[in-house]
Amino acid sequence: MNVKSSVKSDIEIAQQATMKPIVEIADKLGLTDDDFELYGKYKAKLSSSAIKKLQENKSGKVILVTAINPTPAGEGKSTVTVGLADAFQQLGKKVMVAMREPSLGPTMGIKGGATGGGYSQVLPMEDINLHFTGDLHAITTANNALAALIDNHLQQGNALNIDQRRIVWKRALDLNDRALRKVIVGLGGPIQGVPREDGFDITVASEIMAVLCLATDLQNLKLRLSRMVVAYNVDKQPVTVGDLGVEGALTLLLKEAVKPNLVQTLEHTPALIHGGPFANIAHGCNSVIATTAASKLADYVITEAGFGADLGAEKFLHIKSRSAGFKPEAVVIVATIRALKMHGGVPKTELVNENVEALKVGFANLKKHVETIQSFGLPFVVAINKFISDTDLEVQALFELCEKENIPVALSEVWEKGGKGGIDLAEKVLKQIESNELTYAPLYDVSDSIEVKIRTIVQKVYGGKDVEFSSKARKQLKDFEGFGWGNLPVCMAKSQYSLSDDPSKLGRPTDFVVTVRELKPSIGAGFIVALTGDVMTMPGLPKAPAALKMDVDENGNAVGLF
Amino acid sequence: MNVKSSVKSDIEIAQQATMKPIVEIADKLGLTDDDFELYGKYKAKLSSSAIKKLQENKSGKVILVTAINPTPAGEGKSTVTVGLADAFQQLGKKVMVAMREPSLGPTMGIKGGATGGGYSQVLPMEDINLHFTGDLHAITTANNALAALIDNHLQQGNALNIDQRRIVWKRALDLNDRALRKVIVGLGGPIQGVPREDGFDITVASEIMAVLCLATDLQNLKLRLSRMVVAYNVDKQPVTVGDLGVEGALTLLLKEAVKPNLVQTLEHTPALIHGGPFANIAHGCNSVIATTAASKLADYVITEAGFGADLGAEKFLHIKSRSAGFKPEAVVIVATIRALKMHGGVPKTELVNENVEALKVGFANLKKHVETIQSFGLPFVVAINKFISDTDLEVQALFELCEKENIPVALSEVWEKGGKGGIDLAEKVLKQIESNELTYAPLYDVSDSIEVKIRTIVQKVYGGKDVEFSSKARKQLKDFEGFGWGNLPVCMAKSQYSLSDDPSKLGRPTDFVVTVRELKPSIGAGFIVALTGDVMTMPGLPKAPAALKMDVDENGNAVGLF
Repeated sequence: MNVKSSVKSDIEIAQQATMKPIVEIADKLGLTDDDFELYGKYKAKLSSSAIKKLQENKSGKVILVTAINPTPAGEGKSTVTVGLADAFQQLGKKVMVAMREPSLGPTMGIKGGATGGGYSQVLPMEDINLHFTGDLHAITTANNALAALIDNHLQQGNALNIDQRRIVWKRALDLNDRALRKVIVGLGGPIQGVPREDGFDITVASEIMAVLCLATDLQNLKLRLSRMVVAYNVDKQPVTVGDLGVEGALTLLLKEAVKPNLVQTLEHTPALIHGGPFANIAHGCNSVIATTAASKLADYVITEAGFGADLGAEKFLHIKSRSAGFKPEAVVIVATIRALKMHGGVPKTELVNENVEALKVGFANLKKHVETIQSFGLPFVVAINKFISDTDLEVQALFELCEKENIPVALSEVWEKGGKGGIDLAEKVLKQIESNELTYAPLYDVSDSIEVKIRTIVQKVYGGKDVEFSSKARKQLKDFEGFGWGNLPVCMAKSQYSLSDDPSKLGRPTDFVVTVRELKPSIGAGFIVALTGDVMTMPGLPKAPAALKMDVDENGNAVGLF
Repeated sequence: MNVKSSVKSDIEIAQQATMKPIVEIADKLGLTDDDFELYGKYKAKLSSSAIKKLQENKSGKVILVTAINPTPAGEGKSTVTVGLADAFQQLGKKVMVAMREPSLGPTMGIKGGATGGGYSQVLPMEDINLHFTGDLHAITTANNALAALIDNHLQQGNALNIDQRRIVWKRALDLNDRALRKVIVGLGGPIQGVPREDGFDITVASEIMAVLCLATDLQNLKLRLSRMVVAYNVDKQPVTVGDLGVEGALTLLLKEAVKPNLVQTLEHTPALIHGGPFANIAHGCNSVIATTAASKLADYVITEAGFGADLGAEKFLHIKSRSAGFKPEAVVIVATIRALKMHGGVPKTELVNENVEALKVGFANLKKHVETIQSFGLPFVVAINKFISDTDLEVQALFELCEKENIPVALSEVWEKGGKGGIDLAEKVLKQIESNELTYAPLYDVSDSIEVKIRTIVQKVYGGKDVEFSSKARKQLKDFEGFGWGNLPVCMAKSQYSLSDDPSKLGRPTDFVVTVRELKPSIGAGFIVALTGDVMTMPGLPKAPAALKMDVDENGNAVGLF
């Protein structure tokens, strides 16, 4: 992410690191042998009995790391999350990281992982970025087992009268594969099934991923799975997994995947890495089970949510926290000088050049996210994720802008220095937590109508003027309220690049209207997705995929992974 | 398999068993902590360094368990394999099991696993039958990553001039899903890819599964992957994974899957369970790496091969042994009285009734398999896998038939009694090994033409009169020899129910002609598949799939799995 040719690559740093056996990390957390199952020497899954036992512990403080609207390379939230936790540890605090697990699709496609970077990484990075403990594979399998059971139901007499044109459950693979976006299945004659239109999503876009991440335990997972809508029948009424009677089988396939994965940072800070739903079609946060478990094991949990505060933080607060019943105690808003210059009108190719004026203009984007977090009543600190190309003048200007607005700000040098580079940030976060009274409140009530909830988000979080609904979405608003889904929170699917639904509107756009073209029920996850613009649920591979450079050396170590 | 309502189910026996920690099992094998990685307390993967180290050990004796042409429920090869190993252990022999790992497709579809049954099972059976250590998921992922890379190659300019109508690489899922047999992908316009016909196989039918099972180490795996033919170009020349330059990425995805999995039987006999290729489109044996490792860790390895001796044993001997460079020392031919009565003309619904006459007629099927194993120059014992419904008269009649023909025979009661029920069989196998000089020789030379190799198998193994080739297959014979593939062994895809290619011809058919309708190159695996009859590479689900009864209890244990 932060490019400098003379420094080591992420994989070099990771492979040269000495990890502690995960049993040592677990032992330090007070876990016994029965509380976890080993997956090799450096990964473990917490057992369900441990999770149950932990419920009696008091809860630590949850700190959410979010960001401004990012550049395509991201603002470095994962890196700051890991480094901030390491800084807390250096300050003698009992701290844990709770993060999402990566998807193989982007790993094989475009160089870049979700395990942090530089000297702020979680380990073993090769394993975590490849198959890890198999959670995503279990979700893929459950997703596709359900699809096979639906098509088999059609083939074997269709007792539920499913309208084959209205099957909304799609198949999934944890890969970038554009050729599977739109397919026809069931060809070849009556023995091979019922022909129909279908498509594949990437696994992280599967509702099962969102369900796993919002479930509070295995029985709650089963309940949520049973509620998932897979199709509509010929009377246009929803058909659920429960109607098919296969929630038990899906739960069985997920019984290990629902257990959070314990690993460590480069500085041996314990980390739970678990679940990774898309931040557009879903809520973009690691699992409730992991964040809750971390809060029971440590005094501070550093966690993150996908994309900028308009998407990730809004969903963390309105969907995840609400569903899990916890409140964050502070928010870190990550910004880079590069991204602020982009918001100030600088083209991507010129972001390496000093440009204080553009930075000042682009600052408006950061300011809006600050105001949003303030509107939730949450203390916060802005973290400037330092890049090699940032100049002293730029850093100084940004600090002055923040100070003028009374915005608490700290430089994060965790990529270059590990936890040491995050001490100032950590101290400022601790100060915010201690000196502020928590007045946290969500911006909407779940009892508001779906339309009101969406308008509230558009106006209060995005700073837009209003929201428009396509005729399809209008009809769905009515249908969904009729199906009894009106009291669910809303999950916005919107471009991450802009506060608006138009990715070209950078900075802090005003007076814009967001168009909702379609709604999608995620009744198992427990939210209604509002789709704006084009939402990509199955990415494609680039001209020269990262896969072309991947290999193993003669000792079986990964080559070219990052 | 052996049904009796008053006895415990397989899963009850498995869940009530007390396993030893796998570290204890490993320790007894002389393995140190660095020789394996734990996957929970009862599963481990042997490390590549351990595999390398073991090469210096002397090799134990490999004993192959095969069968007559089975009923649809199977003859109980896995059960006999496990029980025979437990009997060897009871006799004080240093022994290991080497078996295939199960596929989730059949598990979700039709009740029945691949971990043995009754008191002859490998454990932990729930884990092994579900995701195990993720090997099949890694293969699915590699298979589909390759497919995505091929479609991306088309989309990004098609530099290799791949003929989109001649892409032979199919996608794969480890599920039974008939609706995916024939699909059209790439629909939706120029942004979504190039539309073309495609299909999905079950993962165990992926060439990558066969490659993993025949590879001798990670570098050999990579070499084999690079040779796999994925398509033909516009000049009708083969296009390989090596041409696409992605063998390194595929190897990286498989670097853990290539390591064999250590588990234990109910009686704590060590077992390596690794790889499970289809026995029709592929060779149906567990991995070469596992069988070789087992032979270096123990004095005796009990292993099995899919379907009857006409398929599994023939392929074990001509493909696996040849590729791995080992020779089996003895063969166990499993037969059930039920199946022999079926071969004697009894309808499936009446197999529970005593019928000595039918048994005598059906014996001809067993006799042919005995002659085949004799023609390879291998000592053998027939194992009668005892069912509750077998009568004393039937058992006595079968023993008399064998004795009249000088066929060594033993009753296997391992399903009911564990290793104790296999002592007689074990002693007879040991006697055969000790008293016979090994005169093993394959029935054909790899340097024979493809046509001659196929004719040899049809005549010598199936007892058929001749082989016919469709005009397509004739053309392929010529093309394949032209591509330099003529010197590879042949992998026959044929009905497992008959010695012929017609599943209705039971017993010992004669004078039949086998029709080869198509050839398929599996150049990575290192064989040419000859397809006869209908070969199912993606099964379907039944009207009431096993999934409907699956669940988890409040403690997270599997319910309704078997």
